[in-house]
Amino acid sequence: MGGDAPQGTATSKAATGPAATGGIAADRLRSLIERVERLEEERKALSDDIKDIFAEAKSAGFDVKVMKQLIRMRKQEPAEIEEQETLLDLYRRALGM
Amino acid sequence: MGGDAPQGTATSKAATGPAATGGIAADRLRSLIERVERLEEERKALSDDIKDIFAEAKSAGFDVKVMKQLIRMRKQEPAEIEEQETLLDLYRRALGM
Amino acid sequence: MGGDAPQGTATSKAATGPAATGGIAADRLRSLIERVERLEEERKALSDDIKDIFAEAKSAGFDVKVMKQLIRMRKQEPAEIEEQETLLDLYRRALGM
Amino acid sequence: MGGDAPQGTATSKAATGPAATGGIAADRLRSLIERVERLEEERKALSDDIKDIFAEAKSAGFDVKVMKQLIRMRKQEPAEIEEQETLLDLYRRALGM
Repeated sequence: MGGDAPQGTATSKAATGPAATGGIAADRLRSLIERVERLEEERKALSDDIKDIFAEAKSAGFDVKVMKQLIRMRKQEPAEIEEQETLLDLYRRALGM
Repeated sequence: MGGDAPQGTATSKAATGPAATGGIAADRLRSLIERVERLEEERKALSDDIKDIFAEAKSAGFDVKVMKQLIRMRKQEPAEIEEQETLLDLYRRALGM
Repeated sequence: MGGDAPQGTATSKAATGPAATGGIAADRLRSLIERVERLEEERKALSDDIKDIFAEAKSAGFDVKVMKQLIRMRKQEPAEIEEQETLLDLYRRALGM
Repeated sequence: MGGDAPQGTATSKAATGPAATGGIAADRLRSLIERVERLEEERKALSDDIKDIFAEAKSAGFDVKVMKQLIRMRKQEPAEIEEQETLLDLYRRALGM
């Protein structure tokens, strides 16, 4: 199954059996599509949950923009943060900011 | 907990207990941050899984770009798809495409 | 020209003259499309120029990521920058960062 | 000017003259930053112009979403469009759409 020729072109021999439509392994395509759709739905739900947490944080008086900056920083190495902060200070002073 | 005044400003009295730092409800902030981080990690894993499925589809000979178009269409109402396709044909003919 | 009915549907009487195709004001559509395409091309050229400047900065030894942060900050009010930096410090201390 | 060492670190000798601040070639940094800012401003103006044209198209009764699809297609080779449309039809039939 799944030869080199792109699925669905007349030359592809990958598809066999009744489900094939014009050379398409319909069952395989459906399964792949449905698996992606399920995962996309789960991902959307997670994004909504994240939004809810930030809404909760905001109503608790926290600054969401700063929280997001903090989360980005927590993915960085302390040394990397320090180097960037040093450079930023230096550049700001160079520009009189 | 979580009065109106933005969390972390000197005036906010929301924070109580030893964990408070400069008016910040540190435990609450930590819990909110860690919940977001956990969900972001799960979401990242789902995105990687989706990428894997498309890689699987590609190696099976399917056209990933067309699959993604199909997935977008499956979120639309058939009538909406039909109207857009009719208009697209009309516009293409109008421009001699 | 341009009545309420969506351009291109059979009912729209907006199109007149030989250029009309199935109710489409073809000339108007072409002109709108070509104007957008010209502006998109100009915009793409500007994006390429910006990339070139950052490449020039990098080869001159500047840190592009910090430069971009600086450019974002230069769009903010100093007071807003100061407030965010104060909060960020506070949140970092609250989380022992 | 612009040795290998990152601009702004103590070791960089690139900066000379009064404008240097902590090893930063301040004038060079300012010029690079201002050039980027000017181009970003021009780019923003172009994006606003493009938005205006789509608003004009919409008020003339055109379907903006379909226009955008048309503009994407006009960037593709006709053969590529045809192949994708053939595959899309095939995949839709395979899934009974």
